[in-house]
Amino acid sequence: MKKFIAAMTSGFLITGLMVTVSAFAQDSTSAIDKKGAKMKKSIGAKTFVFPTPVFVVGSYDKSDKPDAMVVAWGGICCSKPPCVAISIREATYTYGNIMARKAFTISIPSEEYIKEADYFGIVSGRTEDKFAATKLTPVKSDLVDAPYVKEFPFAVECSVIQIVKLGSHTMFVGEIKDVKADEAVLGKDGAPDIEKIRPMIFNPANRTYYGIGKYLGDAFSEGKKIKK
Amino acid sequence: MKKFIAAMTSGFLITGLMVTVSAFAQDSTSAIDKKGAKMKKSIGAKTFVFPTPVFVVGSYDKSDKPDAMVVAWGGICCSKPPCVAISIREATYTYGNIMARKAFTISIPSEEYIKEADYFGIVSGRTEDKFAATKLTPVKSDLVDAPYVKEFPFAVECSVIQIVKLGSHTMFVGEIKDVKADEAVLGKDGAPDIEKIRPMIFNPANRTYYGIGKYLGDAFSEGKKIKK
Repeated sequence: MKKFIAAMTSGFLITGLMVTVSAFAQDSTSAIDKKGAKMKKSIGAKTFVFPTPVFVVGSYDKSDKPDAMVVAWGGICCSKPPCVAISIREATYTYGNIMARKAFTISIPSEEYIKEADYFGIVSGRTEDKFAATKLTPVKSDLVDAPYVKEFPFAVECSVIQIVKLGSHTMFVGEIKDVKADEAVLGKDGAPDIEKIRPMIFNPANRTYYGIGKYLGDAFSEGKKIKK
Repeated sequence: MKKFIAAMTSGFLITGLMVTVSAFAQDSTSAIDKKGAKMKKSIGAKTFVFPTPVFVVGSYDKSDKPDAMVVAWGGICCSKPPCVAISIREATYTYGNIMARKAFTISIPSEEYIKEADYFGIVSGRTEDKFAATKLTPVKSDLVDAPYVKEFPFAVECSVIQIVKLGSHTMFVGEIKDVKADEAVLGKDGAPDIEKIRPMIFNPANRTYYGIGKYLGDAFSEGKKIKK
């Protein structure tokens, strides 16, 4: 582990250089390879992958005021124990809250809550009472020391088990203690139905929100058409 | 950092217990709160968030054979330096490849490659040549020691800067050295256009694939309707 922390530290030292190298690579990339085929275009070292999520992260501050922010840098990171990672900047109010309580929730807003979700990412809980402004209701988790958003159909309650400093962002790995969903978004099998939750997607390339599209196929099944 | 590793270790020891507690919580959750309002239903400690991505992770093995696997446990984790995290099980062929080369790529398949992407997650590179079977083309990155998929419209090239053991899965944090995209998926502004890439979404609740839906609104803008 120490070796990797050392590797990370040296990574920081050359970050400025790497950005410069990237900028040059972008200009000099040829559009045609040796065989005359079209090559991909280099567009630089950017935080672009598709999709990224719209997680509304709930926490309590020192005076037990509930706060929420929106996070697109995150995702599931382990199956056993079930864990989800979120990355946030140290300057955020949420950062201090999670550091102190070692807990957070992730509420998944439906499309209809696009304004509220985006608002959570625009203002700071340091100066605003975001729940009051959005007229949304904080619900205290019965398992972790953090609130989730009652009006959003789906929430995950997490206890922090690892904190990894990366650079501009710090990653909090949360063990998922429970998943809670409105009855209205559960399918016949009792599992959450993504078509009823209607989560949003964040598009980092132009900072827009998208909805979920149509069902395409089953995992661990489609590929069997290739596997003989 | 040591404190958090210790915290993680103790987390492992009580995992079995937590699963049991969750199972009971699920049965005993009341559907009505003290104020008579409907409460969310507990559905246990599961790896459910929405959306999760469909990342095709490229790597080389000891004999330079290109391999690819599909990963839904991952996401962007830092802006500066730009980083993306992927979590994979130690038993996978890719795990050994990335450990040895300290590099990987993420290629984003379009919807039309659902069969190929899913196939990458069904078979092991230990016994199969997945590129040969799918008739897809590995392209050696010019920046990191890993191949990406030529036919997929978008790829990210990563150098491993941190490795975090979590449990069933190990997280590889990759610094993004460059992003490459087909000209055909770039918008007028030169940025990748998610509607042209047509990435897939993995739905962990029932292990299905979905497409991207429609544009909903601009981030850092929709929320201003609430902010006064």
